[in-house]
Order: sequence, then C-alpha cells, then structure tokens
Amino acid sequence: MNKLINLNADMGEGFGAYEIGNDAAMLDMVGSANIACGYHGGDPLVMRNTVKLAHQKGVSIGAHPSFPDLQGFGRRKMTIPFDELEAMIIYQIGALMALAQSQGTKVHHVKPHGALNNMAAVDKSMAEAIARSIKAVDPSLVLLATAGSCLYHAGVGAGLATAAEIFADRTYDEQGNLTPRSQPGAVIHDPDQSADQILSFVKAGKIITPSGKGIETPIHSICVHGDTKEALKIAEKVRERLENEGCQLVSLAEMFS
Amino acid sequence: MNKLINLNADMGEGFGAYEIGNDAAMLDMVGSANIACGYHGGDPLVMRNTVKLAHQKGVSIGAHPSFPDLQGFGRRKMTIPFDELEAMIIYQIGALMALAQSQGTKVHHVKPHGALNNMAAVDKSMAEAIARSIKAVDPSLVLLATAGSCLYHAGVGAGLATAAEIFADRTYDEQGNLTPRSQPGAVIHDPDQSADQILSFVKAGKIITPSGKGIETPIHSICVHGDTKEALKIAEKVRERLENEGCQLVSLAEMFS
Amino acid sequence: MNKLINLNADMGEGFGAYEIGNDAAMLDMVGSANIACGYHGGDPLVMRNTVKLAHQKGVSIGAHPSFPDLQGFGRRKMTIPFDELEAMIIYQIGALMALAQSQGTKVHHVKPHGALNNMAAVDKSMAEAIARSIKAVDPSLVLLATAGSCLYHAGVGAGLATAAEIFADRTYDEQGNLTPRSQPGAVIHDPDQSADQILSFVKAGKIITPSGKGIETPIHSICVHGDTKEALKIAEKVRERLENEGCQLVSLAEMFS
Amino acid sequence: MNKLINLNADMGEGFGAYEIGNDAAMLDMVGSANIACGYHGGDPLVMRNTVKLAHQKGVSIGAHPSFPDLQGFGRRKMTIPFDELEAMIIYQIGALMALAQSQGTKVHHVKPHGALNNMAAVDKSMAEAIARSIKAVDPSLVLLATAGSCLYHAGVGAGLATAAEIFADRTYDEQGNLTPRSQPGAVIHDPDQSADQILSFVKAGKIITPSGKGIETPIHSICVHGDTKEALKIAEKVRERLENEGCQLVSLAEMFS
Repeated sequence: MNKLINLNADMGEGFGAYEIGNDAAMLDMVGSANIACGYHGGDPLVMRNTVKLAHQKGVSIGAHPSFPDLQGFGRRKMTIPFDELEAMIIYQIGALMALAQSQGTKVHHVKPHGALNNMAAVDKSMAEAIARSIKAVDPSLVLLATAGSCLYHAGVGAGLATAAEIFADRTYDEQGNLTPRSQPGAVIHDPDQSADQILSFVKAGKIITPSGKGIETPIHSICVHGDTKEALKIAEKVRERLENEGCQLVSLAEMFS
Repeated sequence: MNKLINLNADMGEGFGAYEIGNDAAMLDMVGSANIACGYHGGDPLVMRNTVKLAHQKGVSIGAHPSFPDLQGFGRRKMTIPFDELEAMIIYQIGALMALAQSQGTKVHHVKPHGALNNMAAVDKSMAEAIARSIKAVDPSLVLLATAGSCLYHAGVGAGLATAAEIFADRTYDEQGNLTPRSQPGAVIHDPDQSADQILSFVKAGKIITPSGKGIETPIHSICVHGDTKEALKIAEKVRERLENEGCQLVSLAEMFS
Repeated sequence: MNKLINLNADMGEGFGAYEIGNDAAMLDMVGSANIACGYHGGDPLVMRNTVKLAHQKGVSIGAHPSFPDLQGFGRRKMTIPFDELEAMIIYQIGALMALAQSQGTKVHHVKPHGALNNMAAVDKSMAEAIARSIKAVDPSLVLLATAGSCLYHAGVGAGLATAAEIFADRTYDEQGNLTPRSQPGAVIHDPDQSADQILSFVKAGKIITPSGKGIETPIHSICVHGDTKEALKIAEKVRERLENEGCQLVSLAEMFS
Repeated sequence: MNKLINLNADMGEGFGAYEIGNDAAMLDMVGSANIACGYHGGDPLVMRNTVKLAHQKGVSIGAHPSFPDLQGFGRRKMTIPFDELEAMIIYQIGALMALAQSQGTKVHHVKPHGALNNMAAVDKSMAEAIARSIKAVDPSLVLLATAGSCLYHAGVGAGLATAAEIFADRTYDEQGNLTPRSQPGAVIHDPDQSADQILSFVKAGKIITPSGKGIETPIHSICVHGDTKEALKIAEKVRERLENEGCQLVSLAEMFS
C-alpha cells in the first residue's frame, strides 16, 4: 500500500484553570489538530498556546467549532437557526485564524465538534449551512467530515476540499454509521482490534460492515483520541500498523496542498 | 479649513433578543463603526448584520474588543495578565475579520471598548500589549485611540497607523484628559457647546483646556454617540458644523489608505 | 360568575445594560410575576430590583427557570440529562428565593420558560423531572403550567399545588393545544377577540376548540404579555372584561394559600 | 490544649466535563467544605453532587461565592458596584441553599473566593457589603474570614457569627498578613514547617510574625488545600498534630451551633 493518510485529534479543549486531554502526547502522534474555539472549550490563551505547540511540532491546524455550550462540552443538541449557526461558525474560525496568524501559521481545516458534528452528519440542511460558513471565510479551507455523512457530501457539493475520516476506537453498523454508544461493542478498547479494522478499511477503500458488506468511501483521515491511556495505545498501534503497511502519515495541509 | 476628519461611533452592541443603541441612525452619521465583538455585547449574528449594514452604507468597519464582561457591558475594570489579554483581543479581532470577509468587506481599524480603553489610556504596559495584539494580527490595521493617551503613543511607537480621537459630548480638564463623569459639567448636553468645542479643537490642532491652554495633538476622528435623542442631535450638529467649515468627512479607511 | 382568577406575566428579563419588556406597566396589570433567574435573562441585580418592585405592588413572585441560553433567550431546544436539568432548575429557584428573602418576601410559584416549558408540555419524563425539582426545594411551591399539558399533569401527580394557565394572545387547535406560531391566525392581535376567547373558556371551564368542542380543564391563570402596545391593550381588555363578569383577580399566593 | 478547631477546604470547583481538585480526599480531612457556586467554578450538577458527598461524610457545607469569572477562576480583580455585588452574592448563596435543601441538608457558612476574598480582606466597604449580603439571606449563617482582615471585622460588626481562619501553607509578614506569593518563602512546602506554625498560632491565640511579635486573634479554622500531593500531606500533618495536642476537630456547624 502506498497511500497518504492523516491522523487527526481534538486539542486545546482546556479552559482557564481547567486542563483536559493530553495535547502534548497527541501532538507527537497526529498530523492535524482540531483546536477548540471557545464555544465548548478553549479560551483565547489556550487556543494560542495550542496553536503555537502544534506549529512547533509541524502539525497542521484546524478549527473545531461547536455549539455555544461550555457547560455541556458541546455535546448537547441545540436547535439554532441556520443564519445564526453560520455566523457562530464563522466567528469561531476567524478567532482561531487570527491567533494562528499571530503565531506565524494558519488554519488549514475545519471540523465541527460534538453535537454539531453529529447533527450535521444526518441533517442535510445543517450540513450545507456549515459548508457555506467555511466557504464564506476561505474557500481553500479543508472540511474534515465523517466518511459517508451528510456533511461530507455537503462539503463536496459546495466545492470544498473535503476529507473523509473514520474513527479508530468505534465500530460500525450495517449502514456504515458508527454503532451508537448506547449499544454494546460500540467502543473499541483493544489496540489490535482497532488497528485491524482501520487497516481493513484503508486497504479496501471501504467501510466494512459486520456482515462483511463494503461501503465505498474515500478515507483521508483517522480520528484518534488521547484522553485515556487506552486511547493513546490505540492511536500508537494504528499509527505503527499504517506505517508498517507503507502508508505515509501526513498533515491535511500536505494532503490537500 | 480644508481637512479630512472622521466621525466614529460604537455599534452592534445588541445581544440575542436584546437591542441597544440606534445603529441605523448612526450609520448615516459616521464614517467608521466600532463593532462589538461578543465580549461586552454583540453576538455573531448581530456582528454579521452590523457589518453588512455598515458595508452597504459605505461606513468602514472597526473591531471594538473588550474585557470579557457581558453583564457589566465591558465597563468594569479587570486585572488580566497581558499575554491572556493579547490573546483575547486577537480572538475578537479575528472573529470580526471572518464575519467581514463573509460579507465581502474587511476590518480597517481597532478601538478598545469601555474599561479596557480607559485603563489603556493611562497604563503604558497595557497600551503596548494592545498595540502588539493588533500588529500581530495585521500590521495594516489602524488603531483608534484617545488623543494624548498612553494608547495613542503605544500605537505610534509600535509603528501602527494610529488615529487620535476627541469626544463630542465630554469636557476636558487642565491636563487634557476627559473630565471624570463623577464631576459636574463632565458631559455636554448642548449641541452648540459640543460643536463649538470640537471646532475650536480641530481648528487649533489642540485640546484647549478650561484655562485656555492648548495641548497639541493630531485630531483624526471624533467619537459621537446615538443612544439618546440628545446624543444624536449633538452628532448631527457636530457633523453639520464641520462640513460648513469645509472639513471633508471620511472613513478611517479613506483617511489612512 | 364568582370566580378567583390570576393574571401572570414574564418579568425581569433584562441583563446588565440591556432592558427588555415593560415591567412597570405589567406589574399594575397582573397578580403574579414570573421572574427570570439568570439563565435566559435576568442578572442578580435585575432579579433583586424586579422582586422589590413586585413586592411593593403586591404582586406575588414566581421563579421562571430556563435552559442555560442567554444568547437564544431560552427559546432554543436543548437536550440535557434530567439529573443535570433538575440541578439547574433547583439552582435558579434557590437564587431567586434568596433574593426574595433579602427583600422581605418569598417565591410562591415556578413557571418554566420558553423552550423548557414547550418541551415539558409534551414530554412526560421532562415534566416529571421539573416537578421533582420544585418539590425537592419546597413542596409548598405552586407549579404554573399550561392547561392540559404533560407538565400540568406531572405537577398534579407529584402532589404539587398546580395552576393551569391559558394564553391571552394565542388561538387553540382541535386538540386544545396552542396553534403553532408558524400557522396563520396563531397569534391574536385584537383585544376583543382575545377577551371573548378568555371569557368563553373561563365561563365554560373548558378550552373550546375551533369546531366548538370543549376540553375540560381547570383554569387558574391567564398569561398576558406587555412587550408591545398591542399586547398591553390585550392584557388591559382581558382584565377589564374578567372584572366586569365578577371575577376576582388574585395572586397565585392568594389563590393557593 | 482542649480546643475546638475546624479545618476547611475549597470544593466542587469542577465545571461540566472539567474536573479539578481532589474533593474525595479532602472530604475525609476537613470539617467544613466551601462549595463553588457557579461563578468561578461549579455548575449546578457539580454543586449538587458535592453537597451530597459532603453531607454523607458529615462535613458541614458553606457557600463559596465569587466574582463572575469562570475563565479567570475568580482570581481576577473586578470593580463591581456594591449593590450589584451584594445581589451576586445573595444569588450564589441561594442557589447552593436550594441544592442543599434538595439533598436534605443546609448551608452553614459563607466564605468568599479568590479575588473577592482578597479585595474584601483590605477593603472595608466591600467587606461590609459582603456581610450585609449574608445577613440579608440568613443572619444565622457563619462568615468564614481571614483572621485579622477587614472582612472578619465587618462580619463581627454586622453581628454575624464570624470564624477567623489561618492558612496551613502560607507564611505571614510583620503586619500579620499573608506574605505575597510574589515573595520568596510565601508558600510553605514542608508539612512539619506548616504544622509547627499552625500549632504555635493556635496555642498562642496569636499570629506570630517573623520577628516573634504576636498579633492577637481568635482562630477558629484552618484553611487547607488538596490540589497537590504536597498540599494533601500538609493537611494530613496539620490534622494529626492538632489531634495529638488534644484539639477536637469539628465542623463550623458544630462550632457555632
């Protein structure tokens, strides 16, 4: 296999005195960082420091906009009119852009966070609103979206460079969607199981469902986590196995330049 | 007198269901708008709508960053470490830049709001931090600062195009500072008194103190308000008298292009 | 007709420098005030001042808790786990209780605001969570709920004194629910139409649907608004007609003492 | 020595997904908990859970109100008019009272947090405003204040039961104030040094300054921390040494009942 592949992770989700996640460890693991923009986590100083660290480590920077919900960490569904939602997303992207500019770097991609991402995965109109927001700020930004989601298709439809991601620590159902967390087996805890799944998907260029059916999709990026030791081990194993198979791990900036 | 002069006013300070000020009236009066960036007023939708309206009316756009204090409308003094304050200012400017970009226009100037502006007027280190923030985002941004303040000098010192403003509805003391609001006569209620003062300052190129002493200062802009009928009348009178004297009313974008 | 009836209205929804509504006018109109508790409007000073004014005018005080959504004025649906929602409601009620205590008065009722009220009207589990919250703070509090709603039944089921309210400026559909605002004729603009409807409902002890069907319900209170001149006129007319019919207008404190 | 003494610690300062401090360990150590009320940390669910745990462990509960400053963890000085500050404090105390009530317990004391506490220690008017707030909610509440501070004297002057506290991990200067953190030796890292100081103060009934001078003060409580292993060891050592000397460790509820 001779393939460019990206690893991405969420970063910079602390706030004031509050720290969360293990950004330093993850920055050694991934090619691209999704940086919180103040709405679910991340204050301006955390954002600046995360941008600085990512830039030093050669990790490309993405905005990780959210619903305005610090208390719920952006995981609560909210109904927000699309014109307001668009303005919120533009606001967050712009804030990160200026902080990146102040550190001599720039924002390369956008990945919605939490409930916003989950809702946009299945809501075509919301997905289109997000794509419009990104395009309105900078049409050269890459949209990072769940493989096969409404958001992925909205990005392509809007003419944005759109990266499809699969998840290292989650299983998939017969429709090619993530198994809901409420169901047994939704989350993968074993690094080898995770790496096996990722490798089989990447090699096939398909999401392979429990019955063995293959759903074709481009796969540009793999979302990994680092908030637990287990998650970090999964990320390490996935990375190692991809490299052993000859994949070249790159940033989204490199992949879409 | 054949002089370029700018009128500026604060705008876009509503929030969600809350409306404040009379933006529509002021946009017909001024050349430049200081638009709230969400920290003391202004949410992303209000910001976008205000940018759009200003752009339609040919009014140049400025960011109006504040301390994070919606409840106090940015009028409360806060002690914030300068690295954090810089990040906050960059965050707010960037947010407005992206919203301006989405409306086909751009941010031309920055004017700090409320307590942040008052503190930076007399605190050299804070003033320098603000100048650094602006320069770090875009060194072509104009800093709009109180004539004679630490902030004005910090802007010039940092190499920023820096506009000095005087106030239409406030009197000045012997040091050339605004008479504190706690003292009688601090606020001007009579349009003619206001216009007389503004004209005398602009003609002399000086702030003229109660004793008749003149303090030399460039005067690029006049800050007007529109939150009361009285304030609006002052703005109208000042504008009319300046035009009658042959001044050309321009935006900060035109003045510093 | 010799009947006790209550008029209620939302109050104290300003925030910091922002004013909204016409509390002074409404306090002369109603027997009970639903006072915002900081989550969709109302800051501690606004709350205290509103409590003070209501107390002076003999208007009984209720808490008006909301989802945490100042930007959306509490009108956005949010999905919040019930244990967290209960804690939020208790928090808001307690905050108002202490402010009432500081003014020598007390909180007599609770009415959920906006999207929280709308969701609880049709969601039995959420309605029960709200009833539990109120009971946990003070089982003598009156719950003010939409006539016929899940929330009304949850209040009764929990053993709370529960007041059923109908709306002065809204029409009803065949199921006895409010006509959705998206449909024509949902909002009543004519004071006489409003008063006719209220009188017919109160006399019959029923919500009378467009086809003439009557849905039996206790009617303790009528929700009026004062944010427009029209709304204020409707409130005045409804009040006048009820008094002319011999109804005695009382506070919820008087009704349920 | 046969003396009642209280140990107190700050608790419940997490927020949403953010955890901070080691509440479980501290609840086994102290007699009274100062629980954050949402302004610098603590959301309603965190508050409720902390109240529940403290109640289970027999630790008496206090409100820990703050300036409204989640981003700065309440450590930033702010200038807030006293009527507004009073309303904010009452709001926070009331919120915790209702959550305590819902768990079958009650709030026994109030201790201001961070910058609010530091400012009130030296600002007589602010201290009096805080004392007024507490008295307005419930005059039987105990005020927990720094020994010798303006706040301590304001509490006594207002007729509140007022507990004077000294700090386990801080040194004192010649005036009996805490050595500013900016100076060397301000913070004590050695458990024995801390316990020696605490014992000498408690035995003498005085704050003993570096020169050996004694400043008389009642000492009701000792503030300990648990956010680092070192802090926890200091708390353990102080507790052990007090018990060995025959002190009886009690809650503020027991001390002032």
